[in-house]
Amino acid sequence: MERTTPPTSVVIFGGSGDLTRRKLVPALHSLACRGLLPPETQVIGVARTPLSNSAFRERMYEGIVEYSRLRPGICALWPRFSDNHSYLSGNYDEPETFHQLEERLDRIAAQVNGEVNRLFYLATPPALYPTIVEHLGQAGLNTSGQGQVRIIVEKPFGQDLISARQLNTQIHTVFSEDQVYRIDHYLGKETVQNIMTFRFANAIFEPLWNRNYVDNVQITVAENVGVGHRAGYYDQAGVLRDMFQNHLLQLLTLTAMEPPTVFEATSLRDEKVKVLRAIRPISRSVRAQYTGYLDEPGVAPNSTTPTYAALELLMDNWRWRDVPFYLRSGKLLAAKTTEITVQFKHVPHLMFPVDPGRPIDPNILSLCLQPDEGIHLRFEAKEPGSGMRTRPVDMEFHYAHDFVGELPDAYERLLLDAMQGDASLFARSDEIELAWSLIDPVISSWTDSDSHPVAYYEPGTWGPAEADELLAQNGRGWLRYCGEHLHGSESVNP
Amino acid sequence: MERTTPPTSVVIFGGSGDLTRRKLVPALHSLACRGLLPPETQVIGVARTPLSNSAFRERMYEGIVEYSRLRPGICALWPRFSDNHSYLSGNYDEPETFHQLEERLDRIAAQVNGEVNRLFYLATPPALYPTIVEHLGQAGLNTSGQGQVRIIVEKPFGQDLISARQLNTQIHTVFSEDQVYRIDHYLGKETVQNIMTFRFANAIFEPLWNRNYVDNVQITVAENVGVGHRAGYYDQAGVLRDMFQNHLLQLLTLTAMEPPTVFEATSLRDEKVKVLRAIRPISRSVRAQYTGYLDEPGVAPNSTTPTYAALELLMDNWRWRDVPFYLRSGKLLAAKTTEITVQFKHVPHLMFPVDPGRPIDPNILSLCLQPDEGIHLRFEAKEPGSGMRTRPVDMEFHYAHDFVGELPDAYERLLLDAMQGDASLFARSDEIELAWSLIDPVISSWTDSDSHPVAYYEPGTWGPAEADELLAQNGRGWLRYCGEHLHGSESVNP
Repeated sequence: MERTTPPTSVVIFGGSGDLTRRKLVPALHSLACRGLLPPETQVIGVARTPLSNSAFRERMYEGIVEYSRLRPGICALWPRFSDNHSYLSGNYDEPETFHQLEERLDRIAAQVNGEVNRLFYLATPPALYPTIVEHLGQAGLNTSGQGQVRIIVEKPFGQDLISARQLNTQIHTVFSEDQVYRIDHYLGKETVQNIMTFRFANAIFEPLWNRNYVDNVQITVAENVGVGHRAGYYDQAGVLRDMFQNHLLQLLTLTAMEPPTVFEATSLRDEKVKVLRAIRPISRSVRAQYTGYLDEPGVAPNSTTPTYAALELLMDNWRWRDVPFYLRSGKLLAAKTTEITVQFKHVPHLMFPVDPGRPIDPNILSLCLQPDEGIHLRFEAKEPGSGMRTRPVDMEFHYAHDFVGELPDAYERLLLDAMQGDASLFARSDEIELAWSLIDPVISSWTDSDSHPVAYYEPGTWGPAEADELLAQNGRGWLRYCGEHLHGSESVNP
Repeated sequence: MERTTPPTSVVIFGGSGDLTRRKLVPALHSLACRGLLPPETQVIGVARTPLSNSAFRERMYEGIVEYSRLRPGICALWPRFSDNHSYLSGNYDEPETFHQLEERLDRIAAQVNGEVNRLFYLATPPALYPTIVEHLGQAGLNTSGQGQVRIIVEKPFGQDLISARQLNTQIHTVFSEDQVYRIDHYLGKETVQNIMTFRFANAIFEPLWNRNYVDNVQITVAENVGVGHRAGYYDQAGVLRDMFQNHLLQLLTLTAMEPPTVFEATSLRDEKVKVLRAIRPISRSVRAQYTGYLDEPGVAPNSTTPTYAALELLMDNWRWRDVPFYLRSGKLLAAKTTEITVQFKHVPHLMFPVDPGRPIDPNILSLCLQPDEGIHLRFEAKEPGSGMRTRPVDMEFHYAHDFVGELPDAYERLLLDAMQGDASLFARSDEIELAWSLIDPVISSWTDSDSHPVAYYEPGTWGPAEADELLAQNGRGWLRYCGEHLHGSESVNP
């Protein structure tokens, strides 16, 4: 069962940056504290900022204290573990940087009898990816006689189909596809992986998981904060590039895919790719911007960048034909929540007398990903009293009730997987390109303001009326069903 | 939706008895307090004991104070409501008693312009049923030009097939079948009726409710008390007559039946009868007696009466072919619980690596009837951490969490139904006879102590080892899954 993690030199490009300090090093710290990393593991930060080894270790230390999920901050195992971590200052476009890196990696390998894997992590701005990859190739760092070499590429992976293809091509001239780990931290979340457990480790849900029983599926990734300090990037990207091409489509593929034969990278990603291929060109979409967005520092004065989008997706396959998948995501919405909600069909025939004004609700199943981590099932129960009136009630499972302690962070899982050579939870090149090929036409269609005008919504609401209209045309409504304290009919808003 | 309850004269034979005081009058009190009975409703107690009207009303009052589920005891509506309730003392075998009854009923009818239904309730020892029914017929009380006449027959309804048939014949010479309401208070329980709501007001369970997905079904009615003051009756009857022929087979039919077309007496009872007809002669059974039973006062010194039984039932129909239904019930077991547990099959294929020593558990669904009133669903969730280990977790619904206030008592529901002429939750003659025809051969087979020796179990256990063996032969085990505080693997025994 337990896989072993081979000794690995983890090289983080962008080692002085925010992602390293906030996410990567705290994740490595947690893994080390949980005893999951061999003591030979070394971390080498690479960046332009001049820093001594000890100053780098100090930065890492501070990052852990501030961001580690473990309390209190630093665990006993860490100081010794981090003692031989080091920093390399240099420009990414100078071969000298990579020669120094090679020397250092060789030295490390020599210390531990030669068997050390190498894991490069691209945590720089994406514009630097091609340069770094090219120089890694020129320095011969893309292969090693002494162990596996892998590269993790942070998102965003391109900003459209053309740039994503170009980046894939550039990477593939240096690394083979099986060396490349395109990270989407959503796939590292426990609750996201639990989508697969829920579907494929239980015998009773899969028989219902198709067009015979499902009316529609809704995927909501709602944020209750605005663009904040990311306004400059965000105003260029917009919500489709920022959230849909990666996170929402990943959630969709896990929800919609056929059961993979084994939980293994090829099998799993083949099934996800099949889903993406089955999705029809998206013809129904809503774009919207929260009022006040134009006043955010860093946003262009007449920007039409959407901070909210809602899409209807349809699949041409046996399982999901005619079952719409509604995806929505936005900033400054009423609450922070990520949930996948499956609304089942009505009962085919009702044997009980019902109030005409109060029809029996269809069953609803929600996979709640965050911040409520759990599963909710809504069904009808008999209302006490004479007659056979029914009322919707909820069965709930909450991770926090059954599993003691905080859930591991997504980066812990994904870094460990990459070190162990398991690419199951990373995106393959064809997956990335197919996702862009679905999103690009929507972005293009939005340049026509007559057919796709920008809608507006007030901060703190659930988005624009136009998004409600998108579902109302088919007699449906958005569902919001996760959250520990939602009960009864209040939990579903139209 | 709301049905109206016509003015009814409720005549209780055995009016001075225990059932009247503990169950029937408190139920009538609750119905009156809930505003469900018209003010013209009258209760007439009939029995041999000489009692004045006011003494009878005093007894009723005391019964309500002691046994009413409403707190504090007597509601404001009751005193006026009960003012004109009356008592009639007389022998059941004297025509004079029934003439007096007729006069009184006519007088009541005259007071309210003639439109009063009559509901006779046989709450006497069963041996008196034929006499009372015969005299009701002779007095012409079986019909009325002025309203409906109905008769409720308390259990036990016969003590075997022959006596049940005989009783049906005797009743049918006086009353037509649609006047006869054979009561099994189990069917009046909210959670028992909820079996139907759960199955037929939800679209997602019925597709799973068959041999394709269900491995076995277990129905447990466990008592944690001994025979107590009923030892004399019990020692004659035994657990099969006392619990299986009525309660357990009723629960089985509701669990196993095809969806009725409408919730209505004929449709519902036709489906239940179809289930009983489909059950094969029972060939695997265990009988047992708790140690110490022979010392109970009222028990014959060398009694072999079973206080516990476990049966395996198989059905010859498309839905349930090869799916065993295991029924067990007993006295002085480890806990008081009534539950229907559906154990689903294992996943057809497992895509995740598993510990050989810890296979993935199958899904379990429990309809918890009492004292835990709710529904539990066990499924596999991802265990936090690397890899894809899973662990069983529980989703739960509890009536008490969602519905404020105590659930109505079974007798309230059933008395109201009978007054309204709804026989859905009462047993039809063919149902009763079919149930006896299943139970009789088991009782007969037990007379052979070589092939069916009496097993013994210690008070406070879950029954004899032989009952575990009954399931273990098929690689299964008894499940116990209801109860608010059962969680994790502790909740499933063995």
